[in-house]
Amino acid sequence: MNRREILKLSAASALTALAPTIAEAVEQRASTAESSVHKYDIFELPLKGPAEGNPYVDIQLQATFTLGHRTTQVDGFYDGDGNYKVRFMPDTEGHWTYTITSNNAALANKTGAFTCTAAAPNSHGPVVVRAGHHFAYADGSPYFPFGTTCYAWAHQGDALETQTLETLATAPFNKIRMCVFPKNYEYNHNEPEFYLFPRTAPISKEHPQGLNDTTQFNPKFFAHYEKLLGRLRDMNIEADLILFHPYDRWGYATLSPDVNDFYLRYVIARFAAYRNVWWSLANEFDLIRSKPTPEFTRLLLYVQQHDPYQHMRSIHYSHVMYDYASPAVTHASIQTYDFASAPTWLAAWKKPIVYDEIQYEGNIFSRWGNLSPDEMTRRFWLGVINGCYVTHGETFIDPKLSAEEAETQKLWWSHGGTLKGASPARIAFLRKVLETTTPLGLESPENPYYLNAVSRVLPSPTNSVTYTPSDPPAAILYYLDFHQPERVNIVFSPNTTYTAELIDPWNMTITPIPGTFSGRANIKLAVKPYQALRLKRIMKS
Amino acid sequence: MNRREILKLSAASALTALAPTIAEAVEQRASTAESSVHKYDIFELPLKGPAEGNPYVDIQLQATFTLGHRTTQVDGFYDGDGNYKVRFMPDTEGHWTYTITSNNAALANKTGAFTCTAAAPNSHGPVVVRAGHHFAYADGSPYFPFGTTCYAWAHQGDALETQTLETLATAPFNKIRMCVFPKNYEYNHNEPEFYLFPRTAPISKEHPQGLNDTTQFNPKFFAHYEKLLGRLRDMNIEADLILFHPYDRWGYATLSPDVNDFYLRYVIARFAAYRNVWWSLANEFDLIRSKPTPEFTRLLLYVQQHDPYQHMRSIHYSHVMYDYASPAVTHASIQTYDFASAPTWLAAWKKPIVYDEIQYEGNIFSRWGNLSPDEMTRRFWLGVINGCYVTHGETFIDPKLSAEEAETQKLWWSHGGTLKGASPARIAFLRKVLETTTPLGLESPENPYYLNAVSRVLPSPTNSVTYTPSDPPAAILYYLDFHQPERVNIVFSPNTTYTAELIDPWNMTITPIPGTFSGRANIKLAVKPYQALRLKRIMKS
Repeated sequence: MNRREILKLSAASALTALAPTIAEAVEQRASTAESSVHKYDIFELPLKGPAEGNPYVDIQLQATFTLGHRTTQVDGFYDGDGNYKVRFMPDTEGHWTYTITSNNAALANKTGAFTCTAAAPNSHGPVVVRAGHHFAYADGSPYFPFGTTCYAWAHQGDALETQTLETLATAPFNKIRMCVFPKNYEYNHNEPEFYLFPRTAPISKEHPQGLNDTTQFNPKFFAHYEKLLGRLRDMNIEADLILFHPYDRWGYATLSPDVNDFYLRYVIARFAAYRNVWWSLANEFDLIRSKPTPEFTRLLLYVQQHDPYQHMRSIHYSHVMYDYASPAVTHASIQTYDFASAPTWLAAWKKPIVYDEIQYEGNIFSRWGNLSPDEMTRRFWLGVINGCYVTHGETFIDPKLSAEEAETQKLWWSHGGTLKGASPARIAFLRKVLETTTPLGLESPENPYYLNAVSRVLPSPTNSVTYTPSDPPAAILYYLDFHQPERVNIVFSPNTTYTAELIDPWNMTITPIPGTFSGRANIKLAVKPYQALRLKRIMKS
Repeated sequence: MNRREILKLSAASALTALAPTIAEAVEQRASTAESSVHKYDIFELPLKGPAEGNPYVDIQLQATFTLGHRTTQVDGFYDGDGNYKVRFMPDTEGHWTYTITSNNAALANKTGAFTCTAAAPNSHGPVVVRAGHHFAYADGSPYFPFGTTCYAWAHQGDALETQTLETLATAPFNKIRMCVFPKNYEYNHNEPEFYLFPRTAPISKEHPQGLNDTTQFNPKFFAHYEKLLGRLRDMNIEADLILFHPYDRWGYATLSPDVNDFYLRYVIARFAAYRNVWWSLANEFDLIRSKPTPEFTRLLLYVQQHDPYQHMRSIHYSHVMYDYASPAVTHASIQTYDFASAPTWLAAWKKPIVYDEIQYEGNIFSRWGNLSPDEMTRRFWLGVINGCYVTHGETFIDPKLSAEEAETQKLWWSHGGTLKGASPARIAFLRKVLETTTPLGLESPENPYYLNAVSRVLPSPTNSVTYTPSDPPAAILYYLDFHQPERVNIVFSPNTTYTAELIDPWNMTITPIPGTFSGRANIKLAVKPYQALRLKRIMKS
């Protein structure tokens, strides 16, 4: 059995041994006009192979990428019409080589190389967990998620999708929650332009969900979806991809475990090289009655097993909270507006918490879809001040319409389009406040992750606040919620001095308070609710 | 042993047998110029007796009041300088007779009579529990408690006390929480004008709380306190008397059980005849470290045992909730602003709930003393809409003052004086809304106490509200809190028709919505948070 024959077997365990040595790779590099790719961008290798049979099932295709003594294996995928692709996102500059393995001779045993150059300007890599409760980009720059929700925006056709991207270009959001499957729910009953699996029968009396050929994929669906992923990536917006959800009429919520695995592995092969991808295994998983909770855990671990990049990974619930202490998730993606429990949860889970569903700014009758902008702004502040992150959504209809007419409206939360609410401007302001307060994130003073920038809702249960840590906070951010004290009393750490600014979250103003503060200090405030106070250390002897 | 000798023994168990017969009473009536008293007012009988020794301890004095076959026994009390008094509040019109019993011959064996006439105008009697979760006056007229808090107002001297009464005359409050003992707490460190027990030593190093002669009372203290009780009664303001509290520097929080009983029995003998008295056994009982919880229950039962009128009786906590299911209390007096739990508590305790401490409108730094007027108004609505009642308080200081200067400010919550906040006008408006919606009180539709006027916070968990009771509600009041739907969807009971009004709790407007509503109805609202909607049934076939 020669090397080529061995590769035909596509035995993953044999690959490392068969990868070209560094010397061989250098030799190969010299022989080709070598491509280059920016760090965190996608290296994509197109291949030609068989079109007959069912290549989605029949053909195995992997690639091993090597940099020095380091190797990473990725799945390739079939893209229809005899076209195959391998995608890889390099995270380190240098000379990478690769070897293709396949059970098909036309694809197998190809080798090649490329140069990974410095990251493109404004490209910071995938998001990772940092300092226990926070996030950062892979290059170390800060990432504070300020997300929004457009569940079905990728299934609305070019015109509306283009409008959504235009809206996002000037919106404050750097994460978007979006479904891979189309959505069937109030205000959203349209058929998608593309189906993920070929449809073999439409919805009918005989087939209430129609029929899907779940042994194949529809390359057009994926090409379209990837175009949107790429557009989001280029705007530095994380795509929090919802892999399963209960709002279904096409049969996607009731696929068999084998088909779910088949779907996930294909999605990972195609999407994982986009640095801005997050995996949200499900929206409201507990409403998907066909799968018990352990099956969701198995699917989370399946994603973890196949994702070469270990993208952020979580699952979102409706009523029954997932056990976010589980190692199957990288962060908590919660549906609640209980912010008082955040310190307890942070301590218990030791992970970042994203309040991914806190209800939506809007005016529809459904209880979750008619927050005032003031309340939405308040919830963002409460989340951030508790050391967590918060996700926006918006559900406005034209009040002049009848209920039937309103059903045809485009709501940001489902379709994308344009934003009508007053909270996004305030969320942009909060994001700016956070970014100019700390590069690391806020923690309440009692939290074990001491980040040098603390925050809390004031007044606290004790009537004065005392700071005596050995490393006094560089910045302190207070939010006063519905309280309106005329002063706060603070006992600063010895030998530290602070400046103070009064922040108005609704009017979006930051007003310096004259003087500097140290020792046992009284700081005068406006007698007005929903204000914030920021302190910055200017001296430490 | 003749009758006089037996009465000297003052054996309560023997009294009924020894009371004059109806025939005897009629006979006595003819022999004296008989006084008359309005129902629910105080019949007071002055008596002369011994001044030597310690009459507070030595002299026993009771009276038995008789109307036909009905008798009621009350304690008399010593009022200093050889003066004794018996007080009685008759609750039924007619010819009442009485017999005095005592262990002292000068007091014992007196008999007499008076005529109880109709209640004075605007006098409705003591408050009682009605329909499980609500209150009424004894004459059956509705009583919706809208209380306020002036803990130490009765210890501030005539000038400020007069100002407090003037403020109350035009304020919306018909209940006031007030301490019997003076108060030692932030912003309130003054010595009281009168001490309840004679002071035998001032506060000193040797006696950190001074010394009290707890075998005697100070009649001047009580005369002053009763003057205030009477003024409140004449304004139809219930005096929610706090019998114990932890804010002490004079030794009142650490009296022995015997002294506590001695104090309670004397207080009941003097105050219980005021129809507007409620017994709040303690404020923040769990902060009074000298008494375990069972001792508070014993004291509650002691009050119940000695109070001839069974006035409203409860106890208020700080952190550890009292078991309000206990028969020792007539209603719950809670410290929380958790309104979502109200339906559960109402169902569990089967008693009215008064949210007696929901924090205060104000601007002081203490977390409980700086609510915005908007938030105070919101909490009142949330309490009422959940079928409960709410108590106001206010803590404003002049922000131009230093912390030391501010300590001398008069705060309504502690001293009384004048009101500065913006919430009382809105509370008055809510009271008017409630009084013009239902004479009986509001209940959520799920509550077992069906009162024909229901209420709930909308939107509810289900997206449309359906009414199908056999007796459809005469009125429905919704509060929308931070929600701002452009419409509500309601399915009314068959064959009923309603009118609708949009209520703005802050701007205090009631705006009719054109048209009438029946069947499956959409009612259009303002897209604005913190609104209310009132529906009134105009037809039922």
